[in-house]
Amino acid sequence: MSTSLGIDIGGTNIKAAVVHADGRVAAFETSAWSGGAAADAFETIERLAAAVGDASGVPLDTCGCGCAGLVDHETGIVRSSPNLPQWHDVRLAEELARRLRIPVLVENDANAAAYGEYSAGAARGATNAVMVTIGTGIGGGIVLDGSIYRGSHGFAAEIGHSVIDLSGGVRCACGSTGCVEPLVNAASLVVQAKQRMEEGEESVLAERAAPLTARAVGEAAAAGDSLARRVTDDIGRTLGVLLANIVAYLDPDVIVIGGGVAAAGSSLMDAANAEFAERTAKYQGMATRIVMAELGDTAGVVGAALLAGSSRP
Amino acid sequence: MSTSLGIDIGGTNIKAAVVHADGRVAAFETSAWSGGAAADAFETIERLAAAVGDASGVPLDTCGCGCAGLVDHETGIVRSSPNLPQWHDVRLAEELARRLRIPVLVENDANAAAYGEYSAGAARGATNAVMVTIGTGIGGGIVLDGSIYRGSHGFAAEIGHSVIDLSGGVRCACGSTGCVEPLVNAASLVVQAKQRMEEGEESVLAERAAPLTARAVGEAAAAGDSLARRVTDDIGRTLGVLLANIVAYLDPDVIVIGGGVAAAGSSLMDAANAEFAERTAKYQGMATRIVMAELGDTAGVVGAALLAGSSRP
Repeated sequence: MSTSLGIDIGGTNIKAAVVHADGRVAAFETSAWSGGAAADAFETIERLAAAVGDASGVPLDTCGCGCAGLVDHETGIVRSSPNLPQWHDVRLAEELARRLRIPVLVENDANAAAYGEYSAGAARGATNAVMVTIGTGIGGGIVLDGSIYRGSHGFAAEIGHSVIDLSGGVRCACGSTGCVEPLVNAASLVVQAKQRMEEGEESVLAERAAPLTARAVGEAAAAGDSLARRVTDDIGRTLGVLLANIVAYLDPDVIVIGGGVAAAGSSLMDAANAEFAERTAKYQGMATRIVMAELGDTAGVVGAALLAGSSRP
Repeated sequence: MSTSLGIDIGGTNIKAAVVHADGRVAAFETSAWSGGAAADAFETIERLAAAVGDASGVPLDTCGCGCAGLVDHETGIVRSSPNLPQWHDVRLAEELARRLRIPVLVENDANAAAYGEYSAGAARGATNAVMVTIGTGIGGGIVLDGSIYRGSHGFAAEIGHSVIDLSGGVRCACGSTGCVEPLVNAASLVVQAKQRMEEGEESVLAERAAPLTARAVGEAAAAGDSLARRVTDDIGRTLGVLLANIVAYLDPDVIVIGGGVAAAGSSLMDAANAEFAERTAKYQGMATRIVMAELGDTAGVVGAALLAGSSRP
């Protein structure tokens, strides 16, 4: 059974794992890094690869590397990356293959995570799946009939920048207005709760000494705080509309929800599921399931490793 | 070279054509029908098939039939159809094969039209294409790497019922609010123009004796009428947002626009293209083309015939 090295390069962390062909993780390491020059990332990756290789004691046949940003899957080049501002046309696959002395496949990080959940996580057994990762932004990944769908120019699944609020005025970091990303993210829970308190609404959250977090808003909602509940309900309802839109476009078996927004707990997802059920009642017999991600922090490394393993000649 | 019969069953017309493997139409006939019982449709189809068969003088190997509604492609059964209210679980493929004595493949009509434009029309040569047909409603069809993408339950490409105006109040026939379909359709041009005139805005359209049509609004806009221009601009801008959303989800090579809205002329598409360019500027190097459908009335029959031809064992 082949065993692969999985790497996941983000803006603040690099992760590495040794992953068996069935998705089991034999060893896993994370290292903080600056998000600076590519050369620094290469050194961190070499060190992590040696560490997980030693820890697992398994020979590695191939490597898959997920990376934030616009990745050319065919050539293994990272064109650009909002989270890695110094990276332009970095020959990632070539450089890692030279250093690790195994074949390296490069993939966008959201696609790699979606492939991980599809192959060995919450979307196991599905034919078509969409993964929505909600943290500081919204990432998307589409897997259709076993293959990542990347689109014609590598921009598919940019669902955070689909417009759902044409006549609303919220501006997105991308320059457009009405995108779903600024409406549904982990920070928006905190921002909306603070705004309501400044407008004079009462909440148990006002008595907190520590800085407000998405988790705290979620916990207050679960405990029945009405302000926190209105915030999780509002954002959850908007998420439900996004999920219904994903069905309108792609009608998958399953939509997997991952990322920091899960910390907000069940109140937000209850609202999202209620809105989703209302919006999709018209598709009689439609049965897209909404599930929470299972692989957590390791989705990206598992997906990258399994992709590399599956594409071996 | 194989030659196929293409059929297109809509709510008010049935079309038939003899189509060569390269997409050329050897004979084409349309017949009005009641949209009533399936048995009436079968008789009309038999008559049309005989007529186009005789007119072309070519032996027919196979038949593809597009039909409005929820079609089970695998079994050839039409589950239900908003435009054919008497149709429930109609065994369309089986019945037509018995009557026509050739193998019959059944497909949703919007998918068939998209496949026609993909194979022999405006999206020729593309890898991934989306077709948006804007008439009384909005139909969608997705073709990825040569195959129609139907989704896991046959509901993919229901883009008319994607929500783009969460905080707007326009209600859709499907029961939701904020769907794009009631905002962008041929009738909305007329409705918006009338509403503006009732509110006291001046327009050359007020002097028309004949009932107002989408074409008349388009012509007035092209001639510089400011009310007509505001209407085409408004609806065109909303269409541009939909097109940008299609890119955010699917990033195709090309989006094909078909249907009655084309009658509104260039003012509407100019506005749509301008909005689309603004909304997609963030995808540097993205090059999804927006093109008008080329096959017109025959897209459905050509697509159905070519699908049947390509799936022959």
